[in-house]
Amino acid sequence: MALLERRDQGGIAHLTMTAPERLNALSDDMLEAFQDQIDSLALDHEPRVVILSGAGKAFCAGHDLKEMQAKRQSADGGAAAFRDLFNRCAKVMMGLQSLPQPVIAQVHGIATAAGCQLVATCDLAVATNDTRFGVNGVNIGLFCSTPMVALTRAIGRKKAFEMLTTGQFISADEACRIGLINHSVSAEDLEATTKDLAETLAAKLTSALRIGKRTFYDQAQMTVEKAYDHAAQVMTKNMLDARTEEGITAFLEKRPPDWA
Amino acid sequence: MALLERRDQGGIAHLTMTAPERLNALSDDMLEAFQDQIDSLALDHEPRVVILSGAGKAFCAGHDLKEMQAKRQSADGGAAAFRDLFNRCAKVMMGLQSLPQPVIAQVHGIATAAGCQLVATCDLAVATNDTRFGVNGVNIGLFCSTPMVALTRAIGRKKAFEMLTTGQFISADEACRIGLINHSVSAEDLEATTKDLAETLAAKLTSALRIGKRTFYDQAQMTVEKAYDHAAQVMTKNMLDARTEEGITAFLEKRPPDWA
Amino acid sequence: MALLERRDQGGIAHLTMTAPERLNALSDDMLEAFQDQIDSLALDHEPRVVILSGAGKAFCAGHDLKEMQAKRQSADGGAAAFRDLFNRCAKVMMGLQSLPQPVIAQVHGIATAAGCQLVATCDLAVATNDTRFGVNGVNIGLFCSTPMVALTRAIGRKKAFEMLTTGQFISADEACRIGLINHSVSAEDLEATTKDLAETLAAKLTSALRIGKRTFYDQAQMTVEKAYDHAAQVMTKNMLDARTEEGITAFLEKRPPDWA
Repeated sequence: MALLERRDQGGIAHLTMTAPERLNALSDDMLEAFQDQIDSLALDHEPRVVILSGAGKAFCAGHDLKEMQAKRQSADGGAAAFRDLFNRCAKVMMGLQSLPQPVIAQVHGIATAAGCQLVATCDLAVATNDTRFGVNGVNIGLFCSTPMVALTRAIGRKKAFEMLTTGQFISADEACRIGLINHSVSAEDLEATTKDLAETLAAKLTSALRIGKRTFYDQAQMTVEKAYDHAAQVMTKNMLDARTEEGITAFLEKRPPDWA
Repeated sequence: MALLERRDQGGIAHLTMTAPERLNALSDDMLEAFQDQIDSLALDHEPRVVILSGAGKAFCAGHDLKEMQAKRQSADGGAAAFRDLFNRCAKVMMGLQSLPQPVIAQVHGIATAAGCQLVATCDLAVATNDTRFGVNGVNIGLFCSTPMVALTRAIGRKKAFEMLTTGQFISADEACRIGLINHSVSAEDLEATTKDLAETLAAKLTSALRIGKRTFYDQAQMTVEKAYDHAAQVMTKNMLDARTEEGITAFLEKRPPDWA
Repeated sequence: MALLERRDQGGIAHLTMTAPERLNALSDDMLEAFQDQIDSLALDHEPRVVILSGAGKAFCAGHDLKEMQAKRQSADGGAAAFRDLFNRCAKVMMGLQSLPQPVIAQVHGIATAAGCQLVATCDLAVATNDTRFGVNGVNIGLFCSTPMVALTRAIGRKKAFEMLTTGQFISADEACRIGLINHSVSAEDLEATTKDLAETLAAKLTSALRIGKRTFYDQAQMTVEKAYDHAAQVMTKNMLDARTEEGITAFLEKRPPDWA
C-alpha cells in the first residue's frame, strides 16, 4: 500500500496518509510520496478538489524523530541531511498551496508540529471536535520554526506565540475560533462535512476556482496597489472565459449554467 | 437624482447609493459617481466623517453584470473594457481608504461581491443583524479576485478562502466575530448606531483624525522598523499642531479642549 | 527605588514600573530605565523569561504629557525633542521584541496609549478581567500613531481602526477575543497565572526558546519563500544543539530530558 494513498471519486482526489503506527509521521518516504502526488496533481485536470486525511488514530504527528536522529551519524553530524529535510518539507507545504486544486484537511485525533503545519497550510480544514492541535517541538528542545511560517500566516500573533512557546495543545473549538480551521464537527460527521464542502467546491467552474486559488496566495504578498493591479488583470482573463460568459448569462436568465 | 447622493449634516457627509432597482450595482455610472464624490471629498474640509449607505433593500450587490456582458460586443471581446472597469473599481476602493475622512459603511440587506468589497474597504462598518455577506462570484464562474484584495486584508485566511470558494453567505454576527464589520445591530438601531459612531469621530480634532487615517494604511505596508520611523515623524508633526497643544493642556487642566 | 525595578527569581526577571503616582507614565526617565534593563537583559543569560508589570492602580497610561508639554519651550517648539522621544520609545518597543527572553505583560487597571502599545508589543499578555485597554490619544488631539504600529500587527484592521479613532476603551474579555492579550483572569489570579505561564516557558530548553522568539519576528516580515528558507536554516542549527539531541532521545525513550 502506498504511504500516501490516492483515491479519486466524483472529481475529488482523496489523499490518505497510511502510516498509522507512526501517527502518519512526515518521514523521508512520506515526504517523497507527498511530492510525487503534488507533482502528479499539478498536471492532472481531472480532480477539482483534494481532501487530505490520515489513517489510524491521528491526523499527523509531525516529523519522524527516530529517522531524524539516525541522520546524526554522518560526518557533519547531520547538518546537510537536516537542511535537506526541512527544505523538502517546506517544498511540500508550498506545493500544497501551489496546487491548482483547493486542498481540504480532514483532521482527527492530533495534529502536532509539522502535522499542525499541514493543517495551517491546507486551504481549508475540518476537524472532529476532540482533535488537539499543537506546535509542541519546544517540549523536546526543537522549536517549531518551519511550522511557525504557516501558523503565523493563519492566526494572530499572541496566540501563535503562546502555542509555539508553551507547546500546549488547543482544542478544535478554539482552533475554529482563532481561524486555524474552518469547522469543528462530531467524529461521525467528519467525513460527510468534509465531503459536502469538497462537493460544493467541485461544483464550481474549475477554471475560476484555479485562478482564484493561485491569486489568493500571490496577491497576499503584494502591496495593495500591486495586488489590485494583478487581480484586475486576472479577473479580466476570467471574464474572457467562454464558460464565465455562460455562467453570467445563465444567472441573468435565472437558470443553472451549462458548463458541461 | 444623483446615483450617489450626497447630503452633509453636522460635519458628516452621507453618501447614499440610489439604484435600488439594481441593488445599487457598481455600474459604470455608479463608479463614476463614486470617483466624483471621492475627488470632491478629498478637497473638501467641511465634512469630517463619511457614512456610506444604500437605498432600497440591499446595501450593494456588486458589479452590474448586464452592463458587463454588453461590453463583449467590442472587437477584443471586451478585454480592454473589462480591464478598464476593474481598474476604475480598484481606484474607487483605494480612493475610499485615501480619503482624509474616515468612511463608515452603514450596511443592510445584502453586501455581495464588490458590495462586500466595499464593506471590507470602508474604515468601519455597522450592519443590521439580518444582513448577509458574500463574495459569491465563484457561483457564476467569476472568482471575486479584486474583492479578495480587500477581504484578505480585513479577515483571516481560512475564513476568506472559504467565503471566496464556496460563495456562501455569512451572517452579520459572524461578520462581526471575524472582524469584517464592527457592529451588528437591529434594523431599527442601524441609523442611530452609525450616526453615534460618526459623531464620536466628528467630535475629535480633525487634523489628528486625518493624520491617523493616512498613517494607518501607510504604515501597514512597511516593515516594523520603517513603520516606527514613519509614525514617529508623523506624531512629531501632530505634536506641533497648536490645537494638539491645547488638547493636552486642557486634559492636564481637567477641562474640555477649546478647538473652535 | 529604581523607576523600573528588577527582581530575578527562579530564572524569571520581574520588571516592575514603579511610578504609580503618574500611572507608570513612559517619561524620559522611565524610557531610559527600560533601555538600560533591555541592554542588560540582552546580555544576561540567567533570566529565561521576563514578566513586566506596573505598581499601583494602573499598568501604564502612556507618555508623560506634562513632561512633553515642557519640551515646547525650546526654540523649535519641541520638534527635535518630540522626534527624539518617539524614537527612543520605538527603540524600547522594538527592543522588547529583540530580547532573547520572551516577555509577558502582567496587566491590570488600565493600559492606554503607549501603555496599550506595551501590551501589544510584549510577546504574551495576561490581564485582570477588569482591565481597560485603549489607544485614546485621539481624545486629546494626539493620534496614537506609534502605538498603532504595534496594535495593527496584533489585531484585525476594523477593530484597530475603531479603537484608534473613537478612543474608546475595550474590556479584557474583548481584548482576549480579538487577540490583544492571551488570558483574562480575576485580580486574585493575575500573579499566579502569569507566573505559571512564565514557569512553563522557563522550563523549556532556553536555546530553543531564544531561537524561536527571534525567528518569530524575523520571518513575519518575509515572503513565504524566504521565511521557509530562513526557518529551515534556523531549525537545522537547532537540531545540531547537543541538548536538542538529548531532548529528542529522551522523548523517544519516554523519559524527561536531562538538560542540566
